[in-house]
Amino acid sequence: MSFSEQLKADAALIEARLQVVLANRADQPVTHAMRYSVQGGKRLRGFLVLEGARMLGVSEDRAISAAAAVEALHAYSLVHDDLPCMDDDDLRRGQPTVHRKWDEATAVLAGDALQTLAFELLCDPALGSGEVRVALVAGLARASGIDGMVLGQALDIAAETASRPLTLAEITALQAGKTGALIGFAAEAGALIAGADPAPLRRYAAALGLAFQIADDILDVTGDEAKTGKRVKKDAEAGKATFVSLLGLAGARARAAALVAEAEAALDPYGARALNLIEAARFVIARET
Amino acid sequence: MSFSEQLKADAALIEARLQVVLANRADQPVTHAMRYSVQGGKRLRGFLVLEGARMLGVSEDRAISAAAAVEALHAYSLVHDDLPCMDDDDLRRGQPTVHRKWDEATAVLAGDALQTLAFELLCDPALGSGEVRVALVAGLARASGIDGMVLGQALDIAAETASRPLTLAEITALQAGKTGALIGFAAEAGALIAGADPAPLRRYAAALGLAFQIADDILDVTGDEAKTGKRVKKDAEAGKATFVSLLGLAGARARAAALVAEAEAALDPYGARALNLIEAARFVIARET
Repeated sequence: MSFSEQLKADAALIEARLQVVLANRADQPVTHAMRYSVQGGKRLRGFLVLEGARMLGVSEDRAISAAAAVEALHAYSLVHDDLPCMDDDDLRRGQPTVHRKWDEATAVLAGDALQTLAFELLCDPALGSGEVRVALVAGLARASGIDGMVLGQALDIAAETASRPLTLAEITALQAGKTGALIGFAAEAGALIAGADPAPLRRYAAALGLAFQIADDILDVTGDEAKTGKRVKKDAEAGKATFVSLLGLAGARARAAALVAEAEAALDPYGARALNLIEAARFVIARET
Repeated sequence: MSFSEQLKADAALIEARLQVVLANRADQPVTHAMRYSVQGGKRLRGFLVLEGARMLGVSEDRAISAAAAVEALHAYSLVHDDLPCMDDDDLRRGQPTVHRKWDEATAVLAGDALQTLAFELLCDPALGSGEVRVALVAGLARASGIDGMVLGQALDIAAETASRPLTLAEITALQAGKTGALIGFAAEAGALIAGADPAPLRRYAAALGLAFQIADDILDVTGDEAKTGKRVKKDAEAGKATFVSLLGLAGARARAAALVAEAEAALDPYGARALNLIEAARFVIARET
């Protein structure tokens, strides 16, 4: 199966798993908002979990709950990031954000419960022994908490009121937390489930995560609102430093390409088995949304 | 050590553990807000973890991370419940709430990261085998997510716009989620760590959790704002059904006393070893804050 077919097939598997775990819950706006929030998207993080696992000989059946967990965690972060007190976004993936479709209280609660759901999903016995599942819980917690994603978000908020634009080192640290940490965990998770050395996948993911963010900044400048489904050029308009404002468009593209080469090199130990992950890295900087 | 001495000693242990895990984190408002949010309070939930463990022969050293986890989870719920879009409270334990002292974005992020921290704390190897720790993660997730605490909160919000006051059955279900589920997990956690049958502690906690909420409703009517550190009579003023509005003050007191007797009876298998937990149940309906 080609990379793009695999990405679609995995997205469907993850969607199905999330809708199953969210079925038979209380008939309340918060539950509807949770189901709504986990729909759509490329599921790149979930794909990284499943593809890392496949590359190391673990079937989708065994790894699916970890992929769904990463996507539930990602969905929580989007719902809260869109809140009026945060990025105040009306659209996400071309649809009204949760606080616009319901209300702020429902968005806070749906995000909260999606985070909880992520950790609940990692308790699925199919993922492996208790030790393996605890390693997954600890890894997801580190990636998403105050040393990871939340820290990145906090640094992003601080940057908005800072007296000077961020330096390249600062924006790299910010993005390592905001998007890199969860992408890193997603790529490592397959190795944790397989009981394999996570170091190569960790190196791959570190380069991939940064390339992903640089590509996002490039899309902010060059992107088509109809395709991205969100208002573009927001950061640049707000006078915030981005990789493009710091490196220039050509410089940002060159840096992203170098990172993709770095990500590919990290997967050398796996030879041809790493083909889909290499394609994923190339896709990250070639995507239009 | 008497119950009240033990409650204080445990609160100090839990406070110390939380401040240690929150030390050496990024110097950001969100980190300061997290430290602020986990200060103070009676730590009844954390005490239940430690006392349940002690009763079953497990030392505080081994159980402390689970007690800290439950208190971190509780702290997250308070920070988010206080938000303008939720209960819109200015004071908590006599101090400004997080969104008043900092801002809404910091409160959302601090709550988010406190939830993550709770799950991270449950990965502490001191708590036992991987299987034990996964059982704790699964238990905390069930108690706090869409089938537990978040559901209770959602039902509470729905009640505010409902066309009629809640019935006794409805308010009991609401409170079972909103406060009962986490108290239940706290009481069970000691048994999970000890590898003992959690059923008696679960029965104890179910009765205790409901008694706790009835006592809260009674305090809303009779409480002293200077002691509770929050505005009282809010629910009654808002025309919301409470156990007091449904049962009358005397009826509510009688129901709480019956539940405490039920909680005590559940602990019969443990004889004198259960003394502190029995005192805790009595304290819950006798407290003034």
